[in-house]
Amino acid sequence: MVPDSDFSVTPYDVSGAVDYEKLTKQFGTKLIDDKLLKKFEKYTGETHFMLRRKVFFSHRDLDWLFNKYDKNEKFYLYTGRAPSGPIHIGHLMPWIFTKWLQDKFGAKLLFQIPDEEKFFRKDSLSLEQTKKLAYDNILDIIALGFSPKKTEIFLDTEYAKSMYSTACRISKNITASTIKGAFGFTDSNNIGEFFYTSMQAVPAVLESVKQGKNVPCLIPYAIDQDPHFRVARDVIPKLGFYKPAAIHCKFLPPLQGVEGKMSSSKEMGAILTTDSPEVVRDKIMKYAFSGGRDTLKEHREKGGNPDIDVSYQWLRMMFEPDDKKLENIYFKYKGGEMLTGELKQILVDKVNVFLKKHQLERKRAEKRVDKFLVRD
Amino acid sequence: MVPDSDFSVTPYDVSGAVDYEKLTKQFGTKLIDDKLLKKFEKYTGETHFMLRRKVFFSHRDLDWLFNKYDKNEKFYLYTGRAPSGPIHIGHLMPWIFTKWLQDKFGAKLLFQIPDEEKFFRKDSLSLEQTKKLAYDNILDIIALGFSPKKTEIFLDTEYAKSMYSTACRISKNITASTIKGAFGFTDSNNIGEFFYTSMQAVPAVLESVKQGKNVPCLIPYAIDQDPHFRVARDVIPKLGFYKPAAIHCKFLPPLQGVEGKMSSSKEMGAILTTDSPEVVRDKIMKYAFSGGRDTLKEHREKGGNPDIDVSYQWLRMMFEPDDKKLENIYFKYKGGEMLTGELKQILVDKVNVFLKKHQLERKRAEKRVDKFLVRD
Repeated sequence: MVPDSDFSVTPYDVSGAVDYEKLTKQFGTKLIDDKLLKKFEKYTGETHFMLRRKVFFSHRDLDWLFNKYDKNEKFYLYTGRAPSGPIHIGHLMPWIFTKWLQDKFGAKLLFQIPDEEKFFRKDSLSLEQTKKLAYDNILDIIALGFSPKKTEIFLDTEYAKSMYSTACRISKNITASTIKGAFGFTDSNNIGEFFYTSMQAVPAVLESVKQGKNVPCLIPYAIDQDPHFRVARDVIPKLGFYKPAAIHCKFLPPLQGVEGKMSSSKEMGAILTTDSPEVVRDKIMKYAFSGGRDTLKEHREKGGNPDIDVSYQWLRMMFEPDDKKLENIYFKYKGGEMLTGELKQILVDKVNVFLKKHQLERKRAEKRVDKFLVRD
Repeated sequence: MVPDSDFSVTPYDVSGAVDYEKLTKQFGTKLIDDKLLKKFEKYTGETHFMLRRKVFFSHRDLDWLFNKYDKNEKFYLYTGRAPSGPIHIGHLMPWIFTKWLQDKFGAKLLFQIPDEEKFFRKDSLSLEQTKKLAYDNILDIIALGFSPKKTEIFLDTEYAKSMYSTACRISKNITASTIKGAFGFTDSNNIGEFFYTSMQAVPAVLESVKQGKNVPCLIPYAIDQDPHFRVARDVIPKLGFYKPAAIHCKFLPPLQGVEGKMSSSKEMGAILTTDSPEVVRDKIMKYAFSGGRDTLKEHREKGGNPDIDVSYQWLRMMFEPDDKKLENIYFKYKGGEMLTGELKQILVDKVNVFLKKHQLERKRAEKRVDKFLVRD
C-alpha cells in the first residue's frame, strides 16, 4: 500500500486513481526512459505501441538484462495467471506484449498458473474450481499465439515436484515479518498465503535450476504484482541466482471509469473473451465512461475529454496500434467533431474484430493444450 | 512448552526430566489403560513389551480406531523421520514398535521423510545434505524388516506433486497465529517453517485421498511431535476426513542420564546404528549414567538404583523384551548383587547382538531401496 495516497495497489487489491509515477517511487522501480526505448528499437526493429505510450512504463534492471543480452546471454520470459474467474481483455493486455517479446527476442516463456493462490484467499473457492478455471484460462493464453516450442504452461499443483525444492530454498530466506510488510498480512492470514510468494518466485529461477547455470529472466507483469517480486529479488541472489529483471504495465481500466482495474467479478465493467459481439456492443454503449459533454451542442462547442474517456483509453492502451489513427481520433474527439457514440462505435468494432479471431483461436486451442502444458 | 515445569517438550527441543503424566494433561492426550492393553492382546495375541512397560504410554482416539477395526474398517500406519544426521538407536525404538503393528494388523505403512523440515530450521543445513541424509536414514528404516509390499517411503521433495494439493487444503485452515501458539514461533521464523506442518499432516489423510474414501489412520510417534498432529487433527475433519488416531512413546534417554532425549548431534550420548562393537562398548562403559554406589562396599550393602540407571532403562525400554529376565536384573542390581560393570556388560552384549544383525540388514538394504521408495 502507498501511504498518504487516494489509491491502493497490492497483489490483492487495486482501488482509486493510481498515480503511477508516485507508485514507482514507492515501489522503488524505474520509469522506462527514451534510452531504453531506443534499445528496444535496436533489438526488435520497432517500438511496441504499449512501450511508446507508456502502458508498459516501469522496470527493474532492464539495462542489466540488455547488457547481458549484448554479451550473448539470452533471457527467458516468465509471467503468470492466478485463476479465480474467466479471462477478460484486461488480462490479455500484458500477455499480448509478452508474446511480442517472445517473437522479437526468440525467448522461451514459462507461464505459471498458480491454481492455489486465489484458493488460499477466497473461502468460497475450492481447489477443484481453480483447477477447472485454470484449464479454461489456458485456452485464452494459447489463443494469443505463443510459440508451442518455446512456451511451457504449468499449474502449481501439477508441477509441484519440479517447484517445491526451490520454493523451500526461497522460503527459508523469507520471514513472516517480511510477508506482513510486503502484503499487509496479519497473524489471521493462513499459512498457505504466507508460503505462497515462494511458489510465485520459483519460475524466476527455474530455468537456471534446470540448466545448472544462471540464465537471465525477464518478468512482464501488471505493477500490482510487484510486492511478490520485490521480496523474491531480495532472496534470489542469496541462492546464487541472477535477480530477475521486470517490466511493468498499468491496468486497463474498467468500463465505469479510469480508476482501479478491470475485474471479472464486476462483470459489467469487463469485456470477457467469450462475450458475443452483441454483448460487447451492449456493454460498451451502456457502461463505458464517457469524456463527452452533457449535450450535443455543448460537445460540438467545447469538445470531449479523451483522457478520462474509457473508450479512448482502451483504444490507446490496447486496440489501436496505429499512432496516426489514434491521434486523429484524439483530436477529433477533443475538438468536438467526433461524438461519444461514434468513438464508442470505433471501439466496439475493434474489440469485436479482435474477439472474433480470439474466439476462433480459443476454440482451436482446446486441442492444442498438450503442446504447451508441462506436468510432473 | 509446558508452563510451570522443569522440562520442555516441543518438536524442536526436549530438555529436562519429562513428567510424562503431566505432559499428557497439557497436551490433552490419554494414558493407555488396561482396557486398551487387553484390546491389543485380543487383536494381536500378545502385548508388546513397549506397551506393557508404558514406553508407548499415551494415545489419541485408539478406542475409536479399534471400534472401526471391529467394523472391518482396517487402518493404515503413518510415521516419519526428518533427516538431520545419522540414525541412533533412540530413533529405532518407535519404528520397531511400528513394525510390530504392521505385522500384527497387516497394516499398510506410509513412511514420510520430510527432507525440508530440518533444512528450514538449521542455517548450516542444505537441502542437498538433508536429501543425502534421507537416503542414508532410509537404509536403517528398511533394515528393521518392514514389509516391502505394505510400506511406502517417500521424500517430501520427491513426492511433492502427490502431497502439495492436500497440503494447500490443510494450510488454508491454519492461521499464522495457530502456528505461533503450537510451536512457539515468532515473526522472525521463516515461511517454510510456518507452512511445514501442513506437509507433515498430509500422510495422515493421503490414503483417504488416494482411495477416494475415508481410511482410518494410526500414527505412532514420540510425544514431542504431538503439536503437529494436534493442529492437524483440528483441521482434518473440516476437509471431510477422519481424524488420525495416535500412539505416543517416551524418549530413549541419552547415555548421560534420564533427562532429555538422545541426539545424534551429541554423539557421546548416542549409540549410532553404524557404531562398531568396540565403540558401543566404549561409549556405554565410559558414559552410561549409573545408578550404582560410589564404592563396591556401599553398592553391595545398599544396592543400586535401576530407575536412574541408563543401562537398565535401555534394557527395559528396548533391549530386553523378556519380563522375567528384566525383573531378575532389576532385583539383583537393586539388591547390590549385580554391579554396574556387570549391568553395563549385559547391555553392551544386547546392543551388539542387535547392531550386528541391523548392520547386515542395513547393508542388504542398499539394494532394496527401490522396493520401498515412491516418487512422483
